[in-house]
Amino acid sequence: MIKVGIAGYGVIGQRLADGVALQKDMELVGVADVSPTLAIRALKEKGMPYDLYNAIPGNDKAFEDAGIKVSGTLEDLVQKVDIMLDATSAGVGAKNKEIYQKYHKKAVFQGGEKNSVADVFFHGYANFEQGIGKQFLKLTSCNTTGLIRAVDCLDREMGVEKVAITIIRRVADPGDYHRGLTNALQIDKAPSHQALDLMTIMPHISATGILVHTPVTHGHIITVVATTKRKANKAELLETFRKHPRIRVVSIEEGFLGNASLFRYARDLGNPRGDMYEIAVWEDSVVESGNDIMFAINIPQESVVIPESMDAIRAALGMQSERLEAVGKTNTYLGMGKWLEK
Amino acid sequence: MIKVGIAGYGVIGQRLADGVALQKDMELVGVADVSPTLAIRALKEKGMPYDLYNAIPGNDKAFEDAGIKVSGTLEDLVQKVDIMLDATSAGVGAKNKEIYQKYHKKAVFQGGEKNSVADVFFHGYANFEQGIGKQFLKLTSCNTTGLIRAVDCLDREMGVEKVAITIIRRVADPGDYHRGLTNALQIDKAPSHQALDLMTIMPHISATGILVHTPVTHGHIITVVATTKRKANKAELLETFRKHPRIRVVSIEEGFLGNASLFRYARDLGNPRGDMYEIAVWEDSVVESGNDIMFAINIPQESVVIPESMDAIRAALGMQSERLEAVGKTNTYLGMGKWLEK
Amino acid sequence: MIKVGIAGYGVIGQRLADGVALQKDMELVGVADVSPTLAIRALKEKGMPYDLYNAIPGNDKAFEDAGIKVSGTLEDLVQKVDIMLDATSAGVGAKNKEIYQKYHKKAVFQGGEKNSVADVFFHGYANFEQGIGKQFLKLTSCNTTGLIRAVDCLDREMGVEKVAITIIRRVADPGDYHRGLTNALQIDKAPSHQALDLMTIMPHISATGILVHTPVTHGHIITVVATTKRKANKAELLETFRKHPRIRVVSIEEGFLGNASLFRYARDLGNPRGDMYEIAVWEDSVVESGNDIMFAINIPQESVVIPESMDAIRAALGMQSERLEAVGKTNTYLGMGKWLEK
Amino acid sequence: MIKVGIAGYGVIGQRLADGVALQKDMELVGVADVSPTLAIRALKEKGMPYDLYNAIPGNDKAFEDAGIKVSGTLEDLVQKVDIMLDATSAGVGAKNKEIYQKYHKKAVFQGGEKNSVADVFFHGYANFEQGIGKQFLKLTSCNTTGLIRAVDCLDREMGVEKVAITIIRRVADPGDYHRGLTNALQIDKAPSHQALDLMTIMPHISATGILVHTPVTHGHIITVVATTKRKANKAELLETFRKHPRIRVVSIEEGFLGNASLFRYARDLGNPRGDMYEIAVWEDSVVESGNDIMFAINIPQESVVIPESMDAIRAALGMQSERLEAVGKTNTYLGMGKWLEK
Repeated sequence: MIKVGIAGYGVIGQRLADGVALQKDMELVGVADVSPTLAIRALKEKGMPYDLYNAIPGNDKAFEDAGIKVSGTLEDLVQKVDIMLDATSAGVGAKNKEIYQKYHKKAVFQGGEKNSVADVFFHGYANFEQGIGKQFLKLTSCNTTGLIRAVDCLDREMGVEKVAITIIRRVADPGDYHRGLTNALQIDKAPSHQALDLMTIMPHISATGILVHTPVTHGHIITVVATTKRKANKAELLETFRKHPRIRVVSIEEGFLGNASLFRYARDLGNPRGDMYEIAVWEDSVVESGNDIMFAINIPQESVVIPESMDAIRAALGMQSERLEAVGKTNTYLGMGKWLEK
Repeated sequence: MIKVGIAGYGVIGQRLADGVALQKDMELVGVADVSPTLAIRALKEKGMPYDLYNAIPGNDKAFEDAGIKVSGTLEDLVQKVDIMLDATSAGVGAKNKEIYQKYHKKAVFQGGEKNSVADVFFHGYANFEQGIGKQFLKLTSCNTTGLIRAVDCLDREMGVEKVAITIIRRVADPGDYHRGLTNALQIDKAPSHQALDLMTIMPHISATGILVHTPVTHGHIITVVATTKRKANKAELLETFRKHPRIRVVSIEEGFLGNASLFRYARDLGNPRGDMYEIAVWEDSVVESGNDIMFAINIPQESVVIPESMDAIRAALGMQSERLEAVGKTNTYLGMGKWLEK
Repeated sequence: MIKVGIAGYGVIGQRLADGVALQKDMELVGVADVSPTLAIRALKEKGMPYDLYNAIPGNDKAFEDAGIKVSGTLEDLVQKVDIMLDATSAGVGAKNKEIYQKYHKKAVFQGGEKNSVADVFFHGYANFEQGIGKQFLKLTSCNTTGLIRAVDCLDREMGVEKVAITIIRRVADPGDYHRGLTNALQIDKAPSHQALDLMTIMPHISATGILVHTPVTHGHIITVVATTKRKANKAELLETFRKHPRIRVVSIEEGFLGNASLFRYARDLGNPRGDMYEIAVWEDSVVESGNDIMFAINIPQESVVIPESMDAIRAALGMQSERLEAVGKTNTYLGMGKWLEK
Repeated sequence: MIKVGIAGYGVIGQRLADGVALQKDMELVGVADVSPTLAIRALKEKGMPYDLYNAIPGNDKAFEDAGIKVSGTLEDLVQKVDIMLDATSAGVGAKNKEIYQKYHKKAVFQGGEKNSVADVFFHGYANFEQGIGKQFLKLTSCNTTGLIRAVDCLDREMGVEKVAITIIRRVADPGDYHRGLTNALQIDKAPSHQALDLMTIMPHISATGILVHTPVTHGHIITVVATTKRKANKAELLETFRKHPRIRVVSIEEGFLGNASLFRYARDLGNPRGDMYEIAVWEDSVVESGNDIMFAINIPQESVVIPESMDAIRAALGMQSERLEAVGKTNTYLGMGKWLEK
């Protein structure tokens, strides 16, 4: 039983904790954070299903004042685990790394950290093999993770030479008050980091892209213009995506009108927090552009990286040595791709 | 065991179904709807935990095409139950009433129907007694339900003579694409219907108010200027609210910055769909205005009417004859007010 | 002096009127509408700079009640002019056409009408020649008008074979209350009509695209992946755009962070209504994608079609027989492209 | 001819400059800012109708690189004027004050500065007399300015004892990218500063209030519950407001559905930047609440303080010694209250 700890119990950290708790070959030892945030208060109201560790030694009073039990420090937590998932704010992970190194523990960092923090920039489906046995892995960010799922899926089936992407980015998560945008679209300097990151993970593909921020909270939408090695038509593209356990194919006719429909659907499914692990491809969006093919995908930014983070634990600790076996374990425990069983 | 059916499996209908399923003295016989909406598709993906009835006889093909099993018609469902909860679109309930009458069944309508559809306009805490044994009850709308909870709570403690309310209304639910507002506040003709409805339920109170629509989805905020019979100070007001099992007292310091914080918190609590049954009062909002007192409450529009709807079943069928006993049963089964046990 | 009338004094109609009033070789005879809207009330408050005609005979009372002087009916207006600009709601133009035909008058319809209403689907820069002398012309819609400006500009310089576009569409205009979207992105069935329309105007180019609605009001953003006949680099692309009097090249560094910056800038320029006739290309968005080139443009949806509508008058009435002479007249009178004079 | 300078050419500073330029008894000497913002770039594109001074000595290069002519430093500007209007970011005004003192010049600060920066906290209609001859005046903020206009208007007619306000605040201005809120309402600690500020200006009135931020850009809406000395009915209230040159009475029936309608109307009026100096009261919002009266007003946040800022110049320099004469001059030059002439 692999022992796992979580540093940072924010939007991603909470979901990592829930994800680890679902893996039958892993044990969640505890989570660490710096103050009694709403997420920690919810943990308390739920009766502390996960033990809480204090990421700032000497800061226990804030937790005590909120009536929240603390089981030790981050350093205590690190000593009890085989691997840490670090989902702290950008830059903090690099600092925490010193503690992980001190106790010779492995760690998986999230997309906000610099690439240099890790030995490998990792994606469960695209480059699992490169993560095997490594001490420090860094996950791709939410958009990149979802994008690579789709591109890797196509690449393995029909070969992808080039992609030009447009990222229509949600600007905040539901409940975010520290950032936001009001009645405005905002453009970033191109090429977007997601295109560059894709090329780091999949160096045989040429990628570029433009990112536009939009004032919404329920998922990014990415349009992809893909140049494939052999001409792909719409039917074939959809068939390929439908076989992937982490990709849903949806349609406007069913009622999936946009990113908010997918959020509503996940809530209606009874998924905890209304989360969805899968990206979605709109059937109605697929169009051929000469020899290229174009389509739109939806990225549930809060939860999309959870499966690949579980894959990263499997790689780092060598729990499985084969890519499809490893991602398959993750999928089974997270309940992904059930539609493929039929 | 009281047998309950649901007509309309939309935003409210789904939550009514979940709420009934939690009542240990009720049995959910099934839900009826007219087409394979996203909510029905989610029901299918979950393995049909609730039986589905077709609200439009002869319309089975649409469900069949979506691979969804239909267990009969709405009329079939009505015959199997003791009471129907009607959460169909405004106006449809009045039509469905003919079926309910044909089989001499009781029914609870939601706030969108006209008052004339029912024998009594009902609120579990404020006028439970008037619902006892009635055949047709109509619930107050989401804003009115939450508002009355707060005003009734004060009224029973210190007497309320008059309220002037400002309703800052969310304009759509998460995932709504059929209505919306973009970068605009919209004002309604005053007085708002919520003030008028409050006076129907609590005729001894004078109420007026102004409603402003805002382009958000996670809960209404209402400010209330209340003239109480005896002067109330902030501490006393908060103490009164804190004793109510359907009212949370929250603060900015804890991290509850607005309506979206409460939505996030409910998700973090692991509540199904990220729902919250309680209204919230902001500690930081309470101010005295001469002899009046002013405060702000949050109304989770998707789920706030569920408890009072359960109360309505209890009243209509005489399951409990005493107000506090009845609402207490509802609270227990819905897990409300656990903080009072400490 | 060409005499012009306007049918429909809404978002577009008002701006057409202002545009015609600026053309020194045209005279605005009057505008017609059906009721005392805010736009008409503003006309009154300004002292009726334009005469108002009643588009619904017998409906004068509504205007009288609002104290607004009516100078006759739409049919009266039509008789006084050489050409009508029809900016009525979709479908009304086709009906008005009967009046225009009755008096053998020319007309220019806006993008909302069906193509069949007109003899030619028109764009001032792309196919001016085809509009010359025609009785009925239909303008391209706002997105298509702006998109074609950019694509035609490239096509004439370096040849364009294919474009794949992503339209990030504003969902309402400032002040719209009859439509809106709240916290959601919405996807349309692909290919978008704008891509199809582009191919109607420029049949030698292959175009496809995906459109996503976003809850903002200040301009669409379109990303274009263009396959050019000869490889274009970023510098050359920008140089080409900079020479076009209806295209601004802007940068993030200057402060143009998104569509709302351009709206603010137009207000700061003192442009009436805060309007901008030009589309903008972001310098920072231009990236090469293999042999293709990708860039993002901003479309000020309220006013972008005004210049091409003036061009359409020039074509229909043969005021100029040469494309560049005609668009040049329009540009001069609208004050466009002044930066080219330096 | 009074010579005026402006420090800070942002949202407010630009409008102050335009406002001063309209006063026939004032001369705008120039404006000062720290960098070539969009507003300054627009000034350049307009041909520098106002001279620009550099607020950071030695920083000329940034302006030069943008091709913008600088006429001197802020200190140079101060020496040339009789009075400065300081519309710099909060806190900067207090620093600039040293320069104003050095040259014994008067200054008017905007609402963002601390009250202690000035000799008097000023509102043209409510306490003009207190500003006469003072060296340093501070204007009330946008919400407070508009609110006091309405309350002062009532107070002079029928006496106001108490107000309880709900401020539904726009969270950013059009084009703001440095702040924003997405799909959330946010509540502030009560009482709101606007209520406290009102009591500073009008100490005989008891005021409290709650402020809620909303994700929109086109104007705040405030609901006011006013306790008047003698009972006021709706008709009388409206008649009182209609006589005020800085208050518009509008209705839903006319098409004024909310804050965005007023923005649209101001654009349609042809007002520069689509600005409106007047606040608006919705006829449809006025309701009686026992002996109190309740109503809703709209505050155009970008431009509402301009008239009172002109009043402040008149007071500080003793241009007029009588309140109504002074505000009347401002109104005439700004074209306010023309509807009263009929």
